[in-house]
Amino acid sequence: GGGAKSSATVSRNLNRFSTFVKSGGEAFVLGEASGFVKDGDKLCVVLGGRGPEWQGDPYPFQCSIEDPTKQTKFKGMKSYIAYKLVPSHTGQQVHRRYKHFDWLYGRLAEKFPVISVPHLPEKQATGRFEEDFISKRRKGLAWWMDHMCSHPVLAQCDAFQHFLTCPSTDEKAWKQGKRKAERDEMVGANFFLAISVPTGPGTTLDLQEVESQVDGFKAFTKKMDESTLQLNHTANEFARKQVTGFKKEYQKVGHSFKCLSLAFELDQQAFSAGLNQAIAFTADAYDTIGELFAEQPRQDLDPVMDLLALYQGHLANFPDIIHVQKGALTKVKESKRHVEEGKMEVQKAEGIQERCNIISFATLAEINHFHKIRVRDFKSQMQHFLQQQILFFQKVTQKLEEALHKYDNV
Amino acid sequence: GGGAKSSATVSRNLNRFSTFVKSGGEAFVLGEASGFVKDGDKLCVVLGGRGPEWQGDPYPFQCSIEDPTKQTKFKGMKSYIAYKLVPSHTGQQVHRRYKHFDWLYGRLAEKFPVISVPHLPEKQATGRFEEDFISKRRKGLAWWMDHMCSHPVLAQCDAFQHFLTCPSTDEKAWKQGKRKAERDEMVGANFFLAISVPTGPGTTLDLQEVESQVDGFKAFTKKMDESTLQLNHTANEFARKQVTGFKKEYQKVGHSFKCLSLAFELDQQAFSAGLNQAIAFTADAYDTIGELFAEQPRQDLDPVMDLLALYQGHLANFPDIIHVQKGALTKVKESKRHVEEGKMEVQKAEGIQERCNIISFATLAEINHFHKIRVRDFKSQMQHFLQQQILFFQKVTQKLEEALHKYDNV
Repeated sequence: GGGAKSSATVSRNLNRFSTFVKSGGEAFVLGEASGFVKDGDKLCVVLGGRGPEWQGDPYPFQCSIEDPTKQTKFKGMKSYIAYKLVPSHTGQQVHRRYKHFDWLYGRLAEKFPVISVPHLPEKQATGRFEEDFISKRRKGLAWWMDHMCSHPVLAQCDAFQHFLTCPSTDEKAWKQGKRKAERDEMVGANFFLAISVPTGPGTTLDLQEVESQVDGFKAFTKKMDESTLQLNHTANEFARKQVTGFKKEYQKVGHSFKCLSLAFELDQQAFSAGLNQAIAFTADAYDTIGELFAEQPRQDLDPVMDLLALYQGHLANFPDIIHVQKGALTKVKESKRHVEEGKMEVQKAEGIQERCNIISFATLAEINHFHKIRVRDFKSQMQHFLQQQILFFQKVTQKLEEALHKYDNV
Repeated sequence: GGGAKSSATVSRNLNRFSTFVKSGGEAFVLGEASGFVKDGDKLCVVLGGRGPEWQGDPYPFQCSIEDPTKQTKFKGMKSYIAYKLVPSHTGQQVHRRYKHFDWLYGRLAEKFPVISVPHLPEKQATGRFEEDFISKRRKGLAWWMDHMCSHPVLAQCDAFQHFLTCPSTDEKAWKQGKRKAERDEMVGANFFLAISVPTGPGTTLDLQEVESQVDGFKAFTKKMDESTLQLNHTANEFARKQVTGFKKEYQKVGHSFKCLSLAFELDQQAFSAGLNQAIAFTADAYDTIGELFAEQPRQDLDPVMDLLALYQGHLANFPDIIHVQKGALTKVKESKRHVEEGKMEVQKAEGIQERCNIISFATLAEINHFHKIRVRDFKSQMQHFLQQQILFFQKVTQKLEEALHKYDNV
């Protein structure tokens, strides 16, 4: 491979050193974090068939995002788009703006250093009120919402629940919940305190094993980043070609048949009229096929690209997550050396290893979660893509069959 | 719309004046031709439902052209391609080279001034022995042969029958037949003597009616020439796009899916293996679809272009045919004026009108024949084109359905 590399990956490499420190990972591993975690706030990692996993949500829910509508405030001075959200666990609709999603994303990204918070669809400066843009953003937000609801930790987090359930009309409650989320103390180093991992004999992860798994995943994300970038580029180009070139080519064929039928119509004999009509119909069929080609990317390639955009966000998150985990591993290695050199007490080193173990559990749970939704999403998206392509080619075939039948009685 | 004009039409306009003279039309109309025509050599025009028609061939036949094979003579010093011809009325195969076709074409074009002798597929200087060229030429010759056999006058002509039936091994008989054809006296002005038209009351064609029909046909051929040129250009471009652009686009999609499946294979967990295989299969399917696009023009567009080439030949023939007819009409008008001015005897003018009537009958029969085979050929070719396009899109759909099923048990 080489060549293709997301810019996000590159820029994050530059401040790699500070991530372990800034995330609070270092302070936690060194035992400098302190805070009280209520039982209800614990984030549990369990051992599943495929290794560490986030404990499944006992009450899973989804949330639809529909009906983007233009609304105004300050007596029409300011316009914005509001989306209707209906979470399945409450059934109560709320309206949210992109800026609310954006606020929430900021909170979550700060709170969860080893969880890949899905990125929001891109901000866009111009054309905010154009139908295409709004429809595209709605789809992007729906994908984002799906990944939020699918993640056992994110789905249950207070700020997200506030966002999903606070009535849109209750300005006061909204501000209270916002303030509460912004004052959350279980962030940074303290966040790690909330993670609960399996205890007892045989539950400490093998350091080398963890390192090899994380390195394997790092190689995986690099390859996946390259191939999704490439697929996105290809899909974009393929869509563009269908909207321009393919459409044009089929319509040129239609136009040429049309000209032929017009020429043939100069011969007004009865026995040639049927042929002229059949050729004119064929001309229209090719014109329609051109239109079908141009409309098709919206049905099949656009959803693929929406999915790829979401995954590119995750892939941009993982270098930081991996770095936190690697920072913790390094601290364990250092502490072992320090103990050998008599510079550290055994008990302190054991504490470091224990807390590193928590970060390893969380990281592996997050990696497993990523693979799980990846297989789920790419399976369903590939199926959707192929189904839409099949429908498209069937429509084309049907158009041509209609045209063919026009020659039956010529 | 202007612009498109075949170069053949343009160059023939330059020596338009001489055509009427050179064809022998003028000499015939003026009563200067003399020769004896055996009853069996008469070319009969009859009045059919749609006006004058060449009397139908009571024993219609076809002739296949197959198995182009490379042969050598002069102990391998000279190579050539021989085609196997099997006429249905003899069932005896003969072998002919392109140069034999070319000789025959020359004879026929000289002999029949008001009949559109189908043009042979183009000569080509280089690549004579390349498979693509040979296959293309064989198809062109088969179309040519079909039009020869479909024409009641051409099909029966001695030179053509000699060409179809003389055993390839009988060098002497071949040369004799050739010499006979080259010494044929029923050419030029004499040829018109062989044309027999309906006689009796009401069988003289109305001059103005004929003029209007011929003018209408002239406008028709101009439009048809333009539109077939355009369709040929479009078909050529469309074929080129499928062989290059379309193929490339679908194969790029295939390649990108392939890269994605290779990236995903880095995750060796059992639950993701099925997806990886399904994506790899999808990649292959798109690669195959690219190949199908590239192979398709040979099935559908090439035959359309072969037909258009044949018709472009006919359309290039008609200006001369129309000119002969118009020359004869002009002579009739002149003779009437001369009679009024007392410069010509009534009897001579009547003779001119009678002979012009023969040319008019022959011209209208030829125009009718053209329309008849045009409707027949374009109907069957449009059907063939659409059938092949339908088969193509069905093959594509089938490939995609196979790919879709691979996701069933993922």
